[in-house]
Amino acid sequence: AENRILDDVSHRRFNPLLNSWILVSPHRTKRPWQGAQETPSKTTLPEYDPKCYLCPGNTRATGDAMPKYESTYIFVNDYSAVKEDQPDYTSKSSEDNDPSSLLLQATGVKGRCYVITFNPSHNLTLADLPPVSILPIISTWTSLYSAHLPASHPHYTPPPPHLGLAPPKQQYSYLQIFENKGAAMGCSNPHPHGQAWCTTGIPDEPSTEFHNMSEYKQKHGRPMLLDYVNLELTKRERIVFENATWVVLCPYWAVWPYETMVLPRREVHCLPELTAGEKEGLAEAIAVLTKKYDNLFETQFPYSMGIHQAPVDGSLWEESFLHLHFYPPLLRSATVRKFLVGYELMAEPQRDITAEQAAEKLRALRGDEVYRKYL
Amino acid sequence: AENRILDDVSHRRFNPLLNSWILVSPHRTKRPWQGAQETPSKTTLPEYDPKCYLCPGNTRATGDAMPKYESTYIFVNDYSAVKEDQPDYTSKSSEDNDPSSLLLQATGVKGRCYVITFNPSHNLTLADLPPVSILPIISTWTSLYSAHLPASHPHYTPPPPHLGLAPPKQQYSYLQIFENKGAAMGCSNPHPHGQAWCTTGIPDEPSTEFHNMSEYKQKHGRPMLLDYVNLELTKRERIVFENATWVVLCPYWAVWPYETMVLPRREVHCLPELTAGEKEGLAEAIAVLTKKYDNLFETQFPYSMGIHQAPVDGSLWEESFLHLHFYPPLLRSATVRKFLVGYELMAEPQRDITAEQAAEKLRALRGDEVYRKYL
Ligand SMILES: O=P(O)(O)O[C@H]1O[C@H](CO)[C@@H](O)[C@H](O)[C@H]1O
Ligand SMILES: O=P(O)(O)O[C@H]1O[C@H](CO)[C@@H](O)[C@H](O)[C@H]1O
Repeated sequence: AENRILDDVSHRRFNPLLNSWILVSPHRTKRPWQGAQETPSKTTLPEYDPKCYLCPGNTRATGDAMPKYESTYIFVNDYSAVKEDQPDYTSKSSEDNDPSSLLLQATGVKGRCYVITFNPSHNLTLADLPPVSILPIISTWTSLYSAHLPASHPHYTPPPPHLGLAPPKQQYSYLQIFENKGAAMGCSNPHPHGQAWCTTGIPDEPSTEFHNMSEYKQKHGRPMLLDYVNLELTKRERIVFENATWVVLCPYWAVWPYETMVLPRREVHCLPELTAGEKEGLAEAIAVLTKKYDNLFETQFPYSMGIHQAPVDGSLWEESFLHLHFYPPLLRSATVRKFLVGYELMAEPQRDITAEQAAEKLRALRGDEVYRKYL
Repeated sequence: AENRILDDVSHRRFNPLLNSWILVSPHRTKRPWQGAQETPSKTTLPEYDPKCYLCPGNTRATGDAMPKYESTYIFVNDYSAVKEDQPDYTSKSSEDNDPSSLLLQATGVKGRCYVITFNPSHNLTLADLPPVSILPIISTWTSLYSAHLPASHPHYTPPPPHLGLAPPKQQYSYLQIFENKGAAMGCSNPHPHGQAWCTTGIPDEPSTEFHNMSEYKQKHGRPMLLDYVNLELTKRERIVFENATWVVLCPYWAVWPYETMVLPRREVHCLPELTAGEKEGLAEAIAVLTKKYDNLFETQFPYSMGIHQAPVDGSLWEESFLHLHFYPPLLRSATVRKFLVGYELMAEPQRDITAEQAAEKLRALRGDEVYRKYL
């Protein structure tokens, strides 16, 4: 009954992970769209592209060669946003009442940016892969995470040689694993790949999540996201897919039209804590979700995806709770996206369909096969 | 000297308005770009387009007619994100320890969304207008703001009849004036126009700004943004343009490649407080900035622009400080933008040039004339 009301009134919803609000305007999808049209990805790419710098055996812009890798491969981004070697820098410490030290604060960041190829085939996205071919990607993410922990940490393991992963030069604090898929989300090479950036210092978004999750756990004695997944399993209004170990749902506070979260059914802090069965479950969840996404508008569905888990600095991080976010921009079709612009940037994010409506659509779609129109 | 270091090392900068951080990677512009290409706006549009729903005398989608307006005109958006009439809604109040009331919080939002045409000519953007033709737009924004104050407020004035502005049905809390320019920023009609959304409740972004500005003022006895503008006038590294009443600068903590702020030289809380001279100064600042923007890549430069000022609920809002934000997406040329995607969404905003480098480029460009390539 609650849903029926919110399907028809404009309202704000609260995001407890970020302690922020979003504006939901369910009646707004009726407006005609005369603005920008996205270009759907070509789905008739070759299995091997001699000009692709990620295909096995090819040479990258900097002259380095890609080995003839057989499942996944990691290398340091040739144009990294952070570097391992640079002079240290900190702006003068903020002194009370001195505008310059209060308003011009900066601190140096060192780190490493990795590219992770998902598969040797140039034309196979996550949506094209069966769970068994997604499993090696999850293992690679796990190895990458483990290799960045302090050597004394129980989950530390040296990087397996086939990955091409040189040990980091120093102890970093945080590792952000993510994937930008599709030109609409800034991806410049269709070869299936993701990235991982590790840095000194913990970035803002996970920091905020840890802060709010920690407060919740202190107050209520339970992990926020475990409470949340259990609540959603009772309500059953925003679930997209579930198996024995994972739940995929449109969060109550979703911003992007078909935004989802992928959550484990028990408290897990980081990838190395997953059992073999949970890794298989996650591979299935990703396979099903990405296929449903492609089927929604019969296109290669663009998105940014990221994994949030405990930092790698070796501290306990009891408040951390492993989860994945998918932020896909398309709203109405393969060519019409939601723009998060003027009002959204200046005032508050705004969405045009409710999370319940989005979940209902995604739930109804097939997750075992893709039936995109070939373009 | 400080600059010279930050031109070459990756670092995080602090945004005191939002209490957040951004990652700056000055060496990263060297990477080749093979991703999406933006479509530059057509700059050979007719002065009058019979199919445009914003041109004077034309009929809108809903059948309403646009009058033969001569400078600016306001009407309620035919597809508003918020409405004046809807049932009230609040989710059950959050009870300690009840996950449902803690994690599924929502509240109804009423309001009105306006469209404001800037000029009767279909083909004149702000960059094409001399300051004297921008002045009526500033007056219209001011009238709109004043008309939403409580009738008892010293700055309240009833809406002037020529604007086509029916008095709001209730007292709203906040009015967000903004402009989305160009298809890249979700604009669906090139006829020069902006929007203004008023709502019950104060949205997140201005709320956060007020919170941080209020804390600063309490601690240091001066408005944060007045301290900031004075500091930048001393440093002279990030100034783009200045006149007797306004300063245009690339904020130290800019996220978008050529992001700017437009700031008054004295403490001003809202548009109606501006003197006639300050309105003229603002018209000049907007004229110069938008011309410089167009000249940067010789194109109609897309952006989202917004005005932050005191809420309209009639409270004092001593911490408010009138300012404009411009968020333009282009990074390297008329067709290559910065994507704020994976890492930016999951971890922290990241930029590829420093605010000082951006300011230097903008400062050097002409602001009195546009010399775009006609496309
Ligand atoms: O209202 P418009 O111009 O149709 O729509 C544009 O601006 C709005 C306010 O920023 C956004 O919510 C929309 O996503 C965008 O396309
Ligand atoms: O690293 P890429 O794929 O070249 O670049 C893409 O992802 C990065 C990380 O989200 C962004 O900073 C870039 O703006 C985007 O184009």
